[in-house]
Amino acid sequence: MRLSVTQENLARALNIVGRVADGKTGLPILGNVLFRTEGTRLLVAATNLEIAATCYVGAKVEMPGVITLPAKLVGEFVASLPKGTLELTTDDTKMTITSGGYTSVINGVVADDFPELPTIDESQAVQYSVAVVDFKQAAQQTLVACGHDTSRPVLTGVYWHTVEGQLYLAATDGYRLAERQLMASQSDIAAIVPASSLQEVLRSLGDTTEAVDVLFDDTQVRFRLDDIEITSRLIDGTYPNYRQLIPRQSETTAKVHANDFSRVVKVAGLFARDSGGSVTVTIDDEKQNISIHSIASELGENVSSADADVTGNGVITLNSRYITDALHVIDGEQVEFRFSGKLSPCVLSAVGDEPNYVHIIMPLKS
Amino acid sequence: MRLSVTQENLARALNIVGRVADGKTGLPILGNVLFRTEGTRLLVAATNLEIAATCYVGAKVEMPGVITLPAKLVGEFVASLPKGTLELTTDDTKMTITSGGYTSVINGVVADDFPELPTIDESQAVQYSVAVVDFKQAAQQTLVACGHDTSRPVLTGVYWHTVEGQLYLAATDGYRLAERQLMASQSDIAAIVPASSLQEVLRSLGDTTEAVDVLFDDTQVRFRLDDIEITSRLIDGTYPNYRQLIPRQSETTAKVHANDFSRVVKVAGLFARDSGGSVTVTIDDEKQNISIHSIASELGENVSSADADVTGNGVITLNSRYITDALHVIDGEQVEFRFSGKLSPCVLSAVGDEPNYVHIIMPLKS
Repeated sequence: MRLSVTQENLARALNIVGRVADGKTGLPILGNVLFRTEGTRLLVAATNLEIAATCYVGAKVEMPGVITLPAKLVGEFVASLPKGTLELTTDDTKMTITSGGYTSVINGVVADDFPELPTIDESQAVQYSVAVVDFKQAAQQTLVACGHDTSRPVLTGVYWHTVEGQLYLAATDGYRLAERQLMASQSDIAAIVPASSLQEVLRSLGDTTEAVDVLFDDTQVRFRLDDIEITSRLIDGTYPNYRQLIPRQSETTAKVHANDFSRVVKVAGLFARDSGGSVTVTIDDEKQNISIHSIASELGENVSSADADVTGNGVITLNSRYITDALHVIDGEQVEFRFSGKLSPCVLSAVGDEPNYVHIIMPLKS
Repeated sequence: MRLSVTQENLARALNIVGRVADGKTGLPILGNVLFRTEGTRLLVAATNLEIAATCYVGAKVEMPGVITLPAKLVGEFVASLPKGTLELTTDDTKMTITSGGYTSVINGVVADDFPELPTIDESQAVQYSVAVVDFKQAAQQTLVACGHDTSRPVLTGVYWHTVEGQLYLAATDGYRLAERQLMASQSDIAAIVPASSLQEVLRSLGDTTEAVDVLFDDTQVRFRLDDIEITSRLIDGTYPNYRQLIPRQSETTAKVHANDFSRVVKVAGLFARDSGGSVTVTIDDEKQNISIHSIASELGENVSSADADVTGNGVITLNSRYITDALHVIDGEQVEFRFSGKLSPCVLSAVGDEPNYVHIIMPLKS
């Protein structure tokens, strides 16, 4: 292999692809990045067998070839070089990278042992093209509710599925639930995308990316962001029928300014650490306010309130951290907060935005 | 106690003073902050018995009093409140803090068990007033060379001492040494200030602070920054006679652009992790450059070079991390790098700045 590339392009590719490489598994070669010439381009790729990331870099290829190099070292080295042209030359399993006064010889491994990169038959795949702003919002709004308990693997993913011609993303950890309506869909799908893969896609979004193409086959999903492709296995299993849990109407409703509500919850949460975040929310029709009470048995107690546009009285006990998480991803200046008594699920949404995005929190026993 | 203060002032005071409070020692009350009215001001103070920090906050005092409160909770609570006036009222060992819709009752402890705050007889103390920009620079330029080995306590401090009417700050961990000439001094002093105390002062410097007053008595130092005082015990012991170690002249000298040198050292350091950071620096009179060679036995090797203004040839082996640390605090576009053979100390300074600031690195055996 002999070729030249720009430092900027190779550094970007190694930064994105290198995050997927993981030498801590049993297979040391998974800590390496694959370099392979393809026509006038250099393919840079890594995989941890769950996710594979590839990036094409424009190159002046003088001699084709293929090699794998330790991801961390080559990534840090290229990132540290000044801008300009890099010359890459391999000699057996060594690669020499030169740029002006900088010359490194990096010991690699032959590519024969590197795993096959996953393929998707694009003609058979269900495809969506999502504007990057919608993709980001939908991913963030659902990832927050994913579970982390690996004994219930389906809950560690985001459920992409269609209902009556609409594509929805949903996630739940059993204590809270988030559902985002994303776009119209001609095809029917039901696929559970690992949260870690979706987070990797979010991290890889560049400032200039305008749309994310999403392709599903029966066992895999591929996200294409310009010249980057991230391909992940899907989580096997049946997602719970969560939609029946979403209350469509509630007895008690408060509309409150999002910033006021955030601050009140944050302050109350400081006094709720001893009690695992448990705070009591009171909605008062007469006072037209929402107030939160928390007690730290040894340290003290707090009552914080904010003005609200209230219908009906009610009291409910919730985990303050879940309210904070929800407010963090709800996109709107005014938040609607509603529930029916202390035992039924509590619904948060941006005022006027429902049913585009709903966030459900299950009450705590009080 | 009954008084009112502004949220902004109290939050700032608790932020600075609260960092010193440490409830993890054997004495739980050290995790508390002292609140004490003094005339029309509220004194906020904390101590860990090594360092004490105090801050005066302007207050409208209706009833004097004193109490101690858990530093973390009261600090986070006040920081989370909106701007405006806070009402503070104590009832026995409870303090109620109210601001608009926010009311908290925080359980405190009577102040009787709180340690005496340290005093300094200012009429007897040696005093300096240092412009904040000089203070910051001198502290950062010496703290970098302090030791962390508590079995040699004198090396864990910065040595403030006078030589021929000049005040110097110096630090060494035995592998490197930094000396800063700070200002003229009428008095003679020799005092070892704990690195942690000096770092605390740096963290407490506000954007509007213009000068730091430094007062020494025989066993303590006090730093006064506007309305904040940080008082620390000095480290007991005799500082090593380090000045004889500083070579005044060298056989080999390179003047090199600081940014070029930083990058060359950073790149070389990537390949020096296996060898504890060991890199070989070559200064070449004929090529008029400085080059750094590093070998990672398994991963590869690197040679990086930068143009330099060179006098004499030489080779020396150094820890690349120490060079990076030195370049980080040397203030100048051009750096002078000099040594005499591979066994004698290597001297770094900003071109033209010596003897204001010198940074010495001991060579590694190669």
